[in-house]
Amino acid sequence: MVGGGPGAFIGAVHRMAARLDGAIELVCGAFGRDAEKSRATGKELFLPAERCYASYKEMFDRESRLPAGERMDFVSITTPNHLHFPVAMKALDAGFHVVCEKPMTLSVEEAEALAAKVESTGLLFALTHNYTAYPMVRLARRMIRNGEIGEIRRIMVEYPQGWLADIVGKDNKQGVWRTDPKTSGVSCCMGDIGSHSENLAEYISGLRIAELCADLKSFVPGRTLDDDGDVLLKFDNGAIGVLTASQIAVGEENALKIRIYGAARAVEWRQEGPDALVVKSKSGGAQILRRNWAGAASEWSRLPAGHPEGFIEAFANIYTDFARAVAAKKEGVAYETQFPTVQDGLRGVKFIHAVVANARSNEKWTRL
Amino acid sequence: MVGGGPGAFIGAVHRMAARLDGAIELVCGAFGRDAEKSRATGKELFLPAERCYASYKEMFDRESRLPAGERMDFVSITTPNHLHFPVAMKALDAGFHVVCEKPMTLSVEEAEALAAKVESTGLLFALTHNYTAYPMVRLARRMIRNGEIGEIRRIMVEYPQGWLADIVGKDNKQGVWRTDPKTSGVSCCMGDIGSHSENLAEYISGLRIAELCADLKSFVPGRTLDDDGDVLLKFDNGAIGVLTASQIAVGEENALKIRIYGAARAVEWRQEGPDALVVKSKSGGAQILRRNWAGAASEWSRLPAGHPEGFIEAFANIYTDFARAVAAKKEGVAYETQFPTVQDGLRGVKFIHAVVANARSNEKWTRL
Amino acid sequence: MVGGGPGAFIGAVHRMAARLDGAIELVCGAFGRDAEKSRATGKELFLPAERCYASYKEMFDRESRLPAGERMDFVSITTPNHLHFPVAMKALDAGFHVVCEKPMTLSVEEAEALAAKVESTGLLFALTHNYTAYPMVRLARRMIRNGEIGEIRRIMVEYPQGWLADIVGKDNKQGVWRTDPKTSGVSCCMGDIGSHSENLAEYISGLRIAELCADLKSFVPGRTLDDDGDVLLKFDNGAIGVLTASQIAVGEENALKIRIYGAARAVEWRQEGPDALVVKSKSGGAQILRRNWAGAASEWSRLPAGHPEGFIEAFANIYTDFARAVAAKKEGVAYETQFPTVQDGLRGVKFIHAVVANARSNEKWTRL
Amino acid sequence: MVGGGPGAFIGAVHRMAARLDGAIELVCGAFGRDAEKSRATGKELFLPAERCYASYKEMFDRESRLPAGERMDFVSITTPNHLHFPVAMKALDAGFHVVCEKPMTLSVEEAEALAAKVESTGLLFALTHNYTAYPMVRLARRMIRNGEIGEIRRIMVEYPQGWLADIVGKDNKQGVWRTDPKTSGVSCCMGDIGSHSENLAEYISGLRIAELCADLKSFVPGRTLDDDGDVLLKFDNGAIGVLTASQIAVGEENALKIRIYGAARAVEWRQEGPDALVVKSKSGGAQILRRNWAGAASEWSRLPAGHPEGFIEAFANIYTDFARAVAAKKEGVAYETQFPTVQDGLRGVKFIHAVVANARSNEKWTRL
Repeated sequence: MVGGGPGAFIGAVHRMAARLDGAIELVCGAFGRDAEKSRATGKELFLPAERCYASYKEMFDRESRLPAGERMDFVSITTPNHLHFPVAMKALDAGFHVVCEKPMTLSVEEAEALAAKVESTGLLFALTHNYTAYPMVRLARRMIRNGEIGEIRRIMVEYPQGWLADIVGKDNKQGVWRTDPKTSGVSCCMGDIGSHSENLAEYISGLRIAELCADLKSFVPGRTLDDDGDVLLKFDNGAIGVLTASQIAVGEENALKIRIYGAARAVEWRQEGPDALVVKSKSGGAQILRRNWAGAASEWSRLPAGHPEGFIEAFANIYTDFARAVAAKKEGVAYETQFPTVQDGLRGVKFIHAVVANARSNEKWTRL
Repeated sequence: MVGGGPGAFIGAVHRMAARLDGAIELVCGAFGRDAEKSRATGKELFLPAERCYASYKEMFDRESRLPAGERMDFVSITTPNHLHFPVAMKALDAGFHVVCEKPMTLSVEEAEALAAKVESTGLLFALTHNYTAYPMVRLARRMIRNGEIGEIRRIMVEYPQGWLADIVGKDNKQGVWRTDPKTSGVSCCMGDIGSHSENLAEYISGLRIAELCADLKSFVPGRTLDDDGDVLLKFDNGAIGVLTASQIAVGEENALKIRIYGAARAVEWRQEGPDALVVKSKSGGAQILRRNWAGAASEWSRLPAGHPEGFIEAFANIYTDFARAVAAKKEGVAYETQFPTVQDGLRGVKFIHAVVANARSNEKWTRL
Repeated sequence: MVGGGPGAFIGAVHRMAARLDGAIELVCGAFGRDAEKSRATGKELFLPAERCYASYKEMFDRESRLPAGERMDFVSITTPNHLHFPVAMKALDAGFHVVCEKPMTLSVEEAEALAAKVESTGLLFALTHNYTAYPMVRLARRMIRNGEIGEIRRIMVEYPQGWLADIVGKDNKQGVWRTDPKTSGVSCCMGDIGSHSENLAEYISGLRIAELCADLKSFVPGRTLDDDGDVLLKFDNGAIGVLTASQIAVGEENALKIRIYGAARAVEWRQEGPDALVVKSKSGGAQILRRNWAGAASEWSRLPAGHPEGFIEAFANIYTDFARAVAAKKEGVAYETQFPTVQDGLRGVKFIHAVVANARSNEKWTRL
Repeated sequence: MVGGGPGAFIGAVHRMAARLDGAIELVCGAFGRDAEKSRATGKELFLPAERCYASYKEMFDRESRLPAGERMDFVSITTPNHLHFPVAMKALDAGFHVVCEKPMTLSVEEAEALAAKVESTGLLFALTHNYTAYPMVRLARRMIRNGEIGEIRRIMVEYPQGWLADIVGKDNKQGVWRTDPKTSGVSCCMGDIGSHSENLAEYISGLRIAELCADLKSFVPGRTLDDDGDVLLKFDNGAIGVLTASQIAVGEENALKIRIYGAARAVEWRQEGPDALVVKSKSGGAQILRRNWAGAASEWSRLPAGHPEGFIEAFANIYTDFARAVAAKKEGVAYETQFPTVQDGLRGVKFIHAVVANARSNEKWTRL
């Protein structure tokens, strides 16, 4: 693992998700900016000191020289955004599969270079757009593929959070790097949660955003990156919709929600109540499908219906899928992956840049 | 009453709302396109045949010649949109106060002429933007006025319905006239429920929409007016937001919902559960205020908390307020009205036309 | 109307409910304890002073001597409990149909006498167990009759309120008479809302409570009647269940809720969200049926789906049904009524007394 | 681990819960009825064959002879009910700490013997009443301890499930043993989920059930143990309430819910939406507290507010607490545990037997 030292949020999530199903073991890491910090974190994780590296370069270098059965199988990149690209490139060059946080890179050019590298090395690459791994999200996608919703007409996706509603203190490490263009890139809110929303909408619907029209805003004094925004969407099949992302929506936690209206039926899913999928129809009122009830989404479930699964479990669906893909690759057997790919990452980076460019211009519609 | 014959929806609502508090009695009407239909409806309403008129012109003419104590005090206009203007002008000319359905007129010019007429006659005029009369909506407005939310940053208002998702049959009288430009005007969806949304957002927030950017769509084959759309909003204080109105949102009933995020707190209200107002804050989680609980919104309530009030009761708040205003005017006493006015109507018509114009153009932002 | 003077709650509800559909006009009343109070209330209701009577006896006497077309058609009894019996008997003796509040009488003997009187006079008698008139309650009953739920196994009905959690002040007129055995009878909580729960359970299920086992409690110091209690139920088909009624459930408003589980499906209804009926099944998750959606319960609806109807509208379903029954009787035509009857009232009084007797004894099961 | 072979549900949960926080490693097991089955399960879990034992006796025997640093630290018992007692006794005799499923034993005598054994050996013993480890449950308990609710008056706890509504097929291994008195004990429904409800009510409230009055039922043909029941409760402080447990509540998943009403406020928690705690008060409407929002229940949380945690995470709170207690014991340092103890287990077994005895008798109230 690269990243995930003290004060980080997502690194610990990656570790719990990796552990949950018992198929992955953390063996080494470069957890911090220097050897000491890295070793301190590694110690808490019961890692031997010699496998807590001072830098990702050292880690790739040393691990790649270990015997095959001993060295790490893949690396998880959980750093701030600006490091995703150099670390991932280095990892692939060193022959390691990669699990990477999003947004994948800072620029479209980097994203394209990384996609090319993944293709040329033939290594596995997963992007942790974890929301697509929730069982009921996957069920929604399947229902749409099966035509149960009909031709899609309207998609509404919203992701309101309130945690950046005020000036960020220095102790809030995540808040600091996310609002800093050097570590976060061209966008804060759209880069972080707007890109999750875009990915989720395209993943479930199977459609692609064709054009967009955006309004971004930075409400908190002194902040240079956006903390709030709305984007009108036109999809490739003629559907329309709107994407809202906000980090100044006071009182909201992590309220990602998506609604997709087809000609026949509609589906609705909320991340904060992830075990339910609401299906609406013309004649029958709303039906609330529940995870693993009568087998719904059972292949992505660990527990019977009524025993809540949450964020870590969805995240683990990506990790366990990735572990199986790594094992299959080792054994040379075919395996169909479900995790988000480097192409999803490229798409996301393009989306972020298109939104920012449109918001700055007087052009109404920007093609994606 | 003008309008409200067989097959109409809103006419009957007006009558129930007017009756509810016992302060208003229906005394005459021009309910249909000819004398016979008008009399048939009037008979069901226990009206004497001689006060069921063949046309609104006849009604105003005959009623205005009745003695003061006998003739109607005011007229309710519940016709399709294109008749609001001529009927209202005629009523005012004949000296009658007016309660009128929205959108107020087809064109901005008509709306301005009507506003001028109301002013010049000094008569009372209420527009039935009934959603603003729900008790918890009024409580939200008061909280915002009192500064309990802080400076407003984001407003999200949505109004999804599904009843026009398919081709409208001839028996669906309301569907027929609402999708016909001759009776409905330049817009179907935005004119009907988009304007309710605009009015609600401005009413609660106390802000004004300064600029807008719209995308409209007509999904159902053969339909010339919009049945779906999204509008980006910029408010006069710098707040931003989005307004969605849809009549093709399959499975939705009348799901008007508004969320307003301030710098300190947020409020959220849903028309389909109107007795609740959710208040979110940074430190306390969500608080669900309930109508008439500990006195909340008690002055607009009829029943104790937990005894649901609904659409008719909110509508009746407008009617009873109007009846009191009429009585006060008769008695020459001051009375502060709360019902929506001809200026709200003018604002709504301008909004509809701005949305339609923007959606047709490549201009990104249109001033309202 | 008898009762419904200043400080009363339910009298005003009766009047709004009676007015709502335009089929009933209030023509006279004995609203208070003396002529003056009665006239004051009558004046607010636009009644002529000569029809505001000093007592119900005077009213029945004088009204019965008016010409047939002028005198009142029926009387509504909205007094405290102890007056239901004498007023109703007098009204029937005077030849007037009766709408009466519940619990119908203080004692079982009175209830039986009243039932006999109704039968012997052949007059109409409705008891305002208003919750049975909610559209979705009636839909639930119909579904069960149609066998859609299967053989019923479990019924859970609960009615928590919090309004009597503290010592009642003198100004709280309703609180005062409800906690006083002289005006309320042998029970406060079970008599008021326990009997509503019993009636609702039997109405929807079509079953009869065969045996019961009760625990009653009076939590507030100085209170002699129960303010809280639970009752185990055995139904005549072998189903079991529990009934909870509380007036000290702090924070609860009027949270009547019923769940009925059959061998095949289950239904669930909440009074505070009355336009929904949840249907649960083994294979399909929960389905939320909504009033007047795809025609559900449309015959008891006034408004389209998504336009909330509430307490007054349900109450009006009883009144309008009663008005039709009165009109049918006048015209000598057959009419099938749906309102609760004197037999429901007798059943309710028996239930109250059985609960109180069981709670006071060490007998486990009391037959009803 | 003892138990948790193929077809088991809770064994896998124990393993995921133990793994989640990275403090516990599964090192051996007796997973099935013979050596082969045990080894097959162990292989899937990446265990060496020599530590997959044919029986729990063999396991305790062999493990206790391993060097201190190698042998297991504690054993998890996840077998059907009838084996809890012999396995736990043997484990304690062999010097191993124990994590045990509930109900703890079949008889009160066994429970008392086990409690005595735990005391005499001084070993650690945790009972997996996992619902008490949900963060918001613990927050509710703390609020009540702090007096924020006031003197408790009413407790309502319900646990409806539908999974045993029909005759159990042979493939449903869990269904088979739970409905068989030999493996399940004197009760099915009350033993399984009734005892969870009892434990939760006493845990949160800090009160003790003093007396109870029960009605049990077995609805499914051929079933000898209860699958449904209600219990009236009297608590030691004078509060009353009701406990409902059902396994034939069609359409219900795992809908454990508890409501506690005090003199000042009330709390409400639902297992299927475990990140929320509703607090109701006389003056402020309902407040929805959320896990880790503004620090609520943060010490039992892994993720920020809005990132759902579920059943496994709550379960892991018990395991991680237990692991810390084991480590503290090794190091000889003090540690305050929060997990349910052998005394909770004894209490639960007494509850089950009291309910069954009362339900079979005509005695109204049975002391607990």
